[in-house]
Amino acid sequence: MLRARALQLAQPDEAGSTEVTALNALEQLIDALRGLPGVGQKSAQRMAYHLLQHDREAALRLSTALAAAAERVQQCERCHSFSEARICALCEDATRDARLLCVVETPADQAAMERTGSYRGYYFVLQGRVSPLDGIGARELGVAQLLERAADGQVEEVILATSFTAEGEVTAHVLSETLKARGLRATRLARGVPVGSELEYVDLGTIAHALVDRR
Amino acid sequence: MLRARALQLAQPDEAGSTEVTALNALEQLIDALRGLPGVGQKSAQRMAYHLLQHDREAALRLSTALAAAAERVQQCERCHSFSEARICALCEDATRDARLLCVVETPADQAAMERTGSYRGYYFVLQGRVSPLDGIGARELGVAQLLERAADGQVEEVILATSFTAEGEVTAHVLSETLKARGLRATRLARGVPVGSELEYVDLGTIAHALVDRR
Repeated sequence: MLRARALQLAQPDEAGSTEVTALNALEQLIDALRGLPGVGQKSAQRMAYHLLQHDREAALRLSTALAAAAERVQQCERCHSFSEARICALCEDATRDARLLCVVETPADQAAMERTGSYRGYYFVLQGRVSPLDGIGARELGVAQLLERAADGQVEEVILATSFTAEGEVTAHVLSETLKARGLRATRLARGVPVGSELEYVDLGTIAHALVDRR
Repeated sequence: MLRARALQLAQPDEAGSTEVTALNALEQLIDALRGLPGVGQKSAQRMAYHLLQHDREAALRLSTALAAAAERVQQCERCHSFSEARICALCEDATRDARLLCVVETPADQAAMERTGSYRGYYFVLQGRVSPLDGIGARELGVAQLLERAADGQVEEVILATSFTAEGEVTAHVLSETLKARGLRATRLARGVPVGSELEYVDLGTIAHALVDRR
């Protein structure tokens, strides 16, 4: 059976593999694995060899999951987080506190926030953070949509939970000024979060503490 | 059969997505990424968020590369290394020295050997190494095929380049005895390779030196 498949697979060469197959399937896989963050040539090679030698099922499962996620996962129209539906499950959840809106930089930050279990309001996920050098200003972050979302008549407080890095601080400052100019109340997570760290990697106790101490 | 399973996995929507989709596309992706060696929950999450937020093209490229490699990459019938054709390019290369046959544990070890640039013979890739506890003996390693390959009338020397770990040493010993019993000359890489290390990760100079010092 292996032989039969090998024979069968050996034939596609006729069609159009004249130049494309210069980089073969294994090399293409190693190359594609390097597209993952934190994966270099050595790790990519190790991953490819492992999958092909011991776990082709895992390779196929990952292939399917990647295609499905890339196709299906979009942005929630209300909070801009990842969602497969037009409006995400969290935004649809009527039991949450509509008076609170928490602004985070990424879906990963939102997930960390959720895992603390100490926040019951809604979210707004920015498209990153202010970074003048990369040409990312308030407009690119979707501040207009944030203002629109915050002005729904129910939100009483916007909690700025951007990272405590220089860029995150600038982002929080810009948002705070903008929100206050519209008469909205903006608070910032308490400074219990270690300065210079990414929110995503802070331990949950610290995040929960900073949430209580917000000012 | 592999292909059938891929198709089956690609269309889970119709059949039973009612309950299966409790785990959504994002969670499934994170789960599948954990199938990669050396990737835990945190890394998988980071990879998934990165791909979805910044690089969906890389996600699709990886998806395609995984499916293609899992389907196309098979074992070369002669050396048992990875190959898309029935016989791999290296085995087809008539300019190599047919008097030398190098036995390695994995395709990754073969790749390391090739990168030294100091070996011009052919290869035979074992299916692993002798490991009594896992029920892997000489038969499972394809020793019969190795003997057949080595007895082609051209091979004068079989170089045993299994790892210098306990299991690799046992494998080399078993192979050496078997080959000598058939009147074939078997040599071992010189002990310049640090004991206890995997061949794949040894620096190339050391491998090249050990190749020259083989006995």
